[in-house]
Amino acid sequence: MTDPIFTYELLKDFSFSIFKKIGCTDEEAELATEVLLKADLRGIDSHGIARLSGYVRLWDKKRVNSQPAIRITHESPSTAVVDGDSGLGLVVAPRAMEIAIKKAQVAGTGWVAVKNSNHFGIAGYHAMMALPHDMIGIAMTNASPLVAPTFSIERLLGTNPIAVAIPALTQPPFVADFATTTAANGKLEILQRKNQKAPIGWVQTKTGLPSTDPNEAKSGGALIPLGSDREHGSHKGFCLGSWVDIFSAVLSGANYGPWVPPFVAFLDPPSDPVGEGIGHFFGAMRIDAFRPADEFKKHMDNWITRFRSAKTIDGEERVIIPGDPERELNELRLKDGIPLNPKVVEDLKALGGRFSVAF
Amino acid sequence: MTDPIFTYELLKDFSFSIFKKIGCTDEEAELATEVLLKADLRGIDSHGIARLSGYVRLWDKKRVNSQPAIRITHESPSTAVVDGDSGLGLVVAPRAMEIAIKKAQVAGTGWVAVKNSNHFGIAGYHAMMALPHDMIGIAMTNASPLVAPTFSIERLLGTNPIAVAIPALTQPPFVADFATTTAANGKLEILQRKNQKAPIGWVQTKTGLPSTDPNEAKSGGALIPLGSDREHGSHKGFCLGSWVDIFSAVLSGANYGPWVPPFVAFLDPPSDPVGEGIGHFFGAMRIDAFRPADEFKKHMDNWITRFRSAKTIDGEERVIIPGDPERELNELRLKDGIPLNPKVVEDLKALGGRFSVAF
Repeated sequence: MTDPIFTYELLKDFSFSIFKKIGCTDEEAELATEVLLKADLRGIDSHGIARLSGYVRLWDKKRVNSQPAIRITHESPSTAVVDGDSGLGLVVAPRAMEIAIKKAQVAGTGWVAVKNSNHFGIAGYHAMMALPHDMIGIAMTNASPLVAPTFSIERLLGTNPIAVAIPALTQPPFVADFATTTAANGKLEILQRKNQKAPIGWVQTKTGLPSTDPNEAKSGGALIPLGSDREHGSHKGFCLGSWVDIFSAVLSGANYGPWVPPFVAFLDPPSDPVGEGIGHFFGAMRIDAFRPADEFKKHMDNWITRFRSAKTIDGEERVIIPGDPERELNELRLKDGIPLNPKVVEDLKALGGRFSVAF
Repeated sequence: MTDPIFTYELLKDFSFSIFKKIGCTDEEAELATEVLLKADLRGIDSHGIARLSGYVRLWDKKRVNSQPAIRITHESPSTAVVDGDSGLGLVVAPRAMEIAIKKAQVAGTGWVAVKNSNHFGIAGYHAMMALPHDMIGIAMTNASPLVAPTFSIERLLGTNPIAVAIPALTQPPFVADFATTTAANGKLEILQRKNQKAPIGWVQTKTGLPSTDPNEAKSGGALIPLGSDREHGSHKGFCLGSWVDIFSAVLSGANYGPWVPPFVAFLDPPSDPVGEGIGHFFGAMRIDAFRPADEFKKHMDNWITRFRSAKTIDGEERVIIPGDPERELNELRLKDGIPLNPKVVEDLKALGGRFSVAF
């Protein structure tokens, strides 16, 4: 059985209406919708419209403020700290990235740490905002603790993704966007739905043993940092996840490590917060603060072309340049529509019912 | 048989004398020595005095300029591109990091891309230069191609390390410094010397098959990006290595990807360079460009303490905070001396003989 398909326009209108119903301004409902649906278009289905009802449940609990007064609380020529005022991360994050871009226009680079925010959708969206300005974009965020550091059985880090977007001239941009764990949580959710096993190295049991059960994190187990085990460099994945946590939250004054509030509304945030909300970190670097942009972009074309044409292992089709599959899917789904899991459809119908918005 | 032990002072005097003999100024011979020996002190033996004769062989071939005119070729308030004039990376890199720190003092952050340089020792040294200034330090470099992108059999990337150093208040700093491959090349060299096998996931054969032979890269095989295989996220390690390559070399105008000149003097650089020398990238971020430094550092203490005290898997002693093992070894080796492999001792004796410097 194949999943039902919906047009981008239909999902856009629906999402916009829901964000309006919880009190967002037109402009912010549109922005939140664009960020949210970029995940569906690019095939990161776990972070798209499937999460819409989750955001609404956080709003129900007053953990999301639909009319935030987003403001800079501290700044220097190339930096700022932004207080998201508990707004939707889908709105706070692009606002913060805009500030990074403005700083870069003057100072060469701009770096913005954000506190008091919520889940921001896909990191890639925000990093890619830099591209039309001939800038390199960087985005990262911390997230609810699901990941155990190497040698530990405690969940102290989120899947803490990093995105880096780099423009080219005639080639499409280089866009890396990945969780700093062996596998993103969304990949485990897919296995859970299909009742399939996970490869060894993705999760561990509550006592830290290797496991193939994609549900381990629900029964005290944990996800594993990129690398899978110590022998294969999981301590490096732990370094990366820590780096994201510290830049996103210790620099900004958000909650870090095990204090990060859970995304799911049925779990309460820790009662002893060490900061405000969750944290993000954004960077924008103007290419011509280093060398003429066209010169750089010509070399990026050369870089991309050389790597894409690399000789492959027998049976493998091609070397994948980061961002290629997502961009191709984006084009396809804009044309042919977006498939949604029947459970997601049901959930959206219920959400529409509650707010008298047709789905 | 245990390796012979040498005092830090003895190695320092020897290294200083050799750098003087090839024409470095007093100041630069001292700096190069300090950077080089930091690797031995911190236990990254592959990057320390064992490489001294390698640097000299590059000087013999006129690929290292011992009296470089290091200069800024392009800048903005928070950025600079530095031309290393073919100098020792051991000298060019700390000079570039000083520029990043100076930029950060004024603009909040400083970012320096370097071209026309050589191997810079351990990335951690340069990142840690930021710490006494209450700044976060970042250092990365590209390197001779040894690593195959996911799905490829071609060696297109170096082991491209990243270092991030973050200050704390009463706790020692967080210092991550790691190759973006499953295992650093130095770890393979240790296995080669001991005639031991590598775990599956570290290297592949020339046709891209999994292998346990640590010598694979010498017979057409390759090292593998962090993650080990596609299922365990090697495409993420590929993203990281690419990111380092592009920041270090495409931003600066150095050689990138397969065009990076080899460190070993017996292999000639490619005849069709796309830039100058090898490239590095440095960053310095002033903590108080984001929030008061003491406030940040108190939270770093809390972060470090919480993670260090995390419950461990049965049989594991503790969660290791990045930088802990290297700092502990540094203290020990300053006190008790530095063990050197007999082959390295022989090599240094020959080097001393050539320049009439006693070892």
